[in-house]
This record gives sequence, C-alpha cells and structure tokens, in this order.
Amino acid sequence: MINRDSTVYDVVGIGNAIVDVLAKVGEGFISERKLAKGAMTLVEAVDAGKIYNDIIPEREVSGGSSANTVAGLSSFGVSCAFIGKVHDDELGQEFKRSIGASGVDFFTQPLNQGPSTGRSIVLVTPDAERSMFTYLGAAKKLSAKDIDEETIRSGKIIYLEGYLWDDFSAQRAMLKACKLAQKHHRKIAFSLSDKLCVERHRVEFIKLIKKYVDILFCNEDEIKALFQEEDLYKTLDLIKHDVEIAAITRNIQGSVIVNGRVKIFVEAEKVEDVVDTTGAGDLYAAGFLFGYTTDRSLGTCAMIGSIAAAEIITHYGARPEVSLRGFVRNQLRKYGKTI
Amino acid sequence: MINRDSTVYDVVGIGNAIVDVLAKVGEGFISERKLAKGAMTLVEAVDAGKIYNDIIPEREVSGGSSANTVAGLSSFGVSCAFIGKVHDDELGQEFKRSIGASGVDFFTQPLNQGPSTGRSIVLVTPDAERSMFTYLGAAKKLSAKDIDEETIRSGKIIYLEGYLWDDFSAQRAMLKACKLAQKHHRKIAFSLSDKLCVERHRVEFIKLIKKYVDILFCNEDEIKALFQEEDLYKTLDLIKHDVEIAAITRNIQGSVIVNGRVKIFVEAEKVEDVVDTTGAGDLYAAGFLFGYTTDRSLGTCAMIGSIAAAEIITHYGARPEVSLRGFVRNQLRKYGKTI
Repeated sequence: MINRDSTVYDVVGIGNAIVDVLAKVGEGFISERKLAKGAMTLVEAVDAGKIYNDIIPEREVSGGSSANTVAGLSSFGVSCAFIGKVHDDELGQEFKRSIGASGVDFFTQPLNQGPSTGRSIVLVTPDAERSMFTYLGAAKKLSAKDIDEETIRSGKIIYLEGYLWDDFSAQRAMLKACKLAQKHHRKIAFSLSDKLCVERHRVEFIKLIKKYVDILFCNEDEIKALFQEEDLYKTLDLIKHDVEIAAITRNIQGSVIVNGRVKIFVEAEKVEDVVDTTGAGDLYAAGFLFGYTTDRSLGTCAMIGSIAAAEIITHYGARPEVSLRGFVRNQLRKYGKTI
Repeated sequence: MINRDSTVYDVVGIGNAIVDVLAKVGEGFISERKLAKGAMTLVEAVDAGKIYNDIIPEREVSGGSSANTVAGLSSFGVSCAFIGKVHDDELGQEFKRSIGASGVDFFTQPLNQGPSTGRSIVLVTPDAERSMFTYLGAAKKLSAKDIDEETIRSGKIIYLEGYLWDDFSAQRAMLKACKLAQKHHRKIAFSLSDKLCVERHRVEFIKLIKKYVDILFCNEDEIKALFQEEDLYKTLDLIKHDVEIAAITRNIQGSVIVNGRVKIFVEAEKVEDVVDTTGAGDLYAAGFLFGYTTDRSLGTCAMIGSIAAAEIITHYGARPEVSLRGFVRNQLRKYGKTI
C-alpha cells in the first residue's frame, strides 16, 4: 500500500475516466448521420449503442482528457496521480490497469452499481480528424467525496478538464478541488477541453478561470468561443489579465503562450503522416507541464508540448507508445536543446 | 595596475568612442538644412563645425553605442570592459573619466596626434526623436592592434556595433575580435546600429552575421533594411536561420525576440514624458544582456531591456542617471517578477 501522506506528486489530474473505442470511417459516415465533426458530443447509452452497431471497432484504449495528460506526463518521468470514476466492470478494470501501467497512481473508488464505465466512440476520418461521441456513464458519478484534501495538498499542480463541468456532481468535485488547491497554494491548470463544451458553459468557465486558474490550456477555437471573439489577437489581450499562463494550440500554426506582457509564438512540429489527432491537445499539455515542472522557459515548454503532440498523432489512441522523455530528447537535439 | 590576465568580464564592448553634444532644435532646423532625421549621418569635421555653429549646446555627455551599452550593463552590476579610440584631448579625457566612473574597465591607448576625439551632434526635436551628425575623429583610428587576445578571451560576450564598419581600420579590428572570440568560444553580440549604416553595408553585414554573430540587436527599420524586405514577419523567418537570438525593438510596440522556432513578443514599457530617445536601443541591449548573463528567460530579458530603455528616454543623454538594477527591480515587481 502506498502511503499517500508522504507521496508528493508533480501533477494531480482530475477528469472523466473514459475508454476510447476507435473506428475508422469515411467522411460519408459522419455527414449521413449529421454527426458533429471534430468535436466531442455527449450521447446517452442508447445513442452510443446505435453508432457502435454501425462501426467496426479498431481498438479499445484507455482515454479521457486529463487521464491522457497525466499518462503523458508519467512517460516523461513526472510523478502523477489521477482522480476519476469508473465502474468495477471490464472496461473499468482495463482503464485502471492501463493508467497504472503508465505509472500514474489511481486510487478513486470504482462504482459497483449504477452506470457502467464511460466510453467514447472516436470516429477517425481519412483527414485524421477525430469526432467523439461520449457516453459518460460512471464518470458522471465523480463526486466531492472522491476529492480528498491530502491528495490535493500533495500535488504541485492540480490539472482539471472542462469536460467535468458537464455534470453537476463532477462540478462540485471540481470546485472542491479548486478550493483545496487554493487553500494549499497549489497551481491550478485547466483545459477548456472542447469548443462545444465551452459554448455550453462559457459564463461559468470565465468565472472559474478568473477565480482559480493559473495555467489555461485551450485551442484557438476554444478561446474564441470563450470570449465570443473571432480575432485571436484580441483574445490574447483578454486572457492575459485572467491567468498567469495561457497556452493556446493552433494546429499546424503551432502554439502561442501568453504570460502577462509576453506573448510567445512557437512553430508546430512537422509530422509527415498524421493518423489520428485524438489526444493532441492532452499531450501538448503533458509536454508543456513537463517543461514547466522542470523549470524550462515557456518557449521550451511549448516546444516540448508540440513534440509530445506530434508523437500522439502518428498512431491511433491518445496514450504515448514510446517514452516521451526519450522521444522529446531526440527531437529537441535537432534544435540544439537538451532535456 | 589591474592584472587583466585574471579579470573575467561578462561583456567586452567594442565601438566608437564618442562624446555627444546635445542640442534641442525645432523641426524647422532639420528641414531647412535638409538633414536626415532620426538616423546617424557621418560628417567631416568641417560640416560638424557648421552645424555646431548654429546650435546652443545643451550638454556634452559621453556616448557611443557600445559604450552606452556597457555603461548600462555596469549599472546592473555586470562586469564590463570597453575597447574604443579617443584622442588624449579634453573630450577624450572626459570620455575616459565618464566610462570609468560608470564602472567599466577601459584600457585602449589614446591617440596623442592626429584627429581629435570623435563627437556626435545630437539634435533633439520636440517629438523627442534624435538625429545624429557624427564626426568620428579618433574613433576611426581603432585598429587591430587595439584588440588583444587576452581581453577577448576574458569576456563571456563580445559586443560589437555596426558603426565600426564605417571605417576600414575599425573593420579590421572588428574582424580580429570576431575571430578571437570564435577561437575562444565566446558569444558574439552585434548591434545593427542604424538604418543608414545597414544600407551602407548590408551585404557585408549579412556575411558577418552568418559567420560570427550569436546575438543580434536591431530595430524594425534596420532588419527590414538588412533583408530589403518590408514585411517584418518575413524578416523574422529569415533571421532565425542566421543567429541564435535576434532581439528586434519596435518602439511603442515593444520588441520581438527570435530564437529558432520561437518568437517572443513583449510589450513596451509605458513612458509618460519622452524627452530624448538617444541611447534607447543601446540601453535595451544592456538590459537584455543583463538578463541573458544572469540566465533569465528571453521574455524576461526583453522586459528588462524595455525597462532600461524607458529610463534612458526620460532624460537627455544615453547613460543611465539611476542604478538600473534598482530601477528595473522596482518596475519588474509590478509584473510579479524579481531580480
């Protein structure tokens, strides 16, 4: 048994515990069914079942946004814990096994009744874009009781995903984590998760960010949705007042980091064959936070984030398939940097 | 006598040793005489005399671009030496006294015959812009003999100004310094000095930069002149291949730092009453290099540069009138940073 009192984590991730069911589909599959492309749509069990019946599942792999990030961080050698809810069913056991195998501590008590483990049907189109249809299931049952003060206190950074806000019980868990983190002077990192998710909760997200968040992760569409502002540069001048650091990913245009009066534009990694963009944002956050927890400059943090994202999009699934530390070390060497 | 063998400098500046003769003039003074505004024009002694006869000199203060930078660095507590040529006349003695008083070691043997100490008539118009008319005098006589291997070897960074390229003897001094610095694996910093200066020497400057320069300082006009390219963003993508770091000042738009795949945009310091912009670029370089020699992030280096420049433009003359270390510490505190 791990004595949690004495454990110190660099990052404690809190998020929806989800297993991804990956399937390759043609563009027609999405358009015929009028499905939302490139985003995450919440579905009920029955609708998930309908889509599931029409696909040939390629692979089932553990996912979940925050979970992907801490699994990525662990691959860099950063000590992490994860808090999220599964059911004690087959998928739940697979999730637990997988996150444990990646080196992340995971203690949250699983459900043994009620909804089954959450899953996300990830449809990957030939352009490597992913469209997700998520049945939250047990993940929705994360509650304030699952957030214990000792775990929050033992983390330097508490990492939260916007997706948690989709359920009232998980909202309360998130707020409890924020309050405890602030009480213990821990940094709070927050991912905006998804454009549709931002549109669902933008007013509350802005309040949450102003009150609690130190490090914000999002992409260009998400920050534009947050401020209902189409000009990216204007959003940068808005967010600089609200958080210490905002890291905004911009696809092939790289990323931009806002840190008060400083804006850092970093080029994207070139990737020859993009297979599946699932988890690109999650792994960018992992690389960035690896740099941050090891006191790298923000420009280097962003470069590491881009390299980690580049690894994840060359294969199916949102968990790294190589040691990110080694992978990033090799890539950075090309730019004359060492880690 | 100082034993130079055992002295280690953070920065060794090499440049034209110049005394600035400051005068306030109206816009008409510049336009009537068809003088170049906002730049540095080289003049012969006789032309300098003509302008001098028409002005009421406000102050005579030691100047020279590199000399201003090392004087600024010294005000941060950074150990510096300066190499440049004066005549052993009254102005030359004033230059020596002034740079010594600022804490900079200055050993270059003065002339005791030939041209008198160089001077620059600095006309400050009501918009605080400065137009300079420089008689190089003794400064032109800087020669390869004045560059000794031991001084170059003892500096971590060798700082050179583009103005040196205006004379063949000083060119050879500069090339000797570059070769010695490269031999001893010292960093070479280079300031493009002035738009007209870049236009005079752009092809040679590009060669010099590619071959020797690690850290380039310039303003927006200068880098555009260097590449004969009006789009600033295109110049950034050109210079990134040639130097490790380029720091480009942009007036009230702040500055941008190019470091390989990373571009860092930093806001300018707000200054209420701009009196005289002489030395703004020189002091930006001083602040930046103070940050660099003390291992700050490039964004912080640029912020320190901007703050140092903000100090210098609130008064006449290009040498700091307060301790820059203290001044910058107070300003940075507002942004939650400490030095």
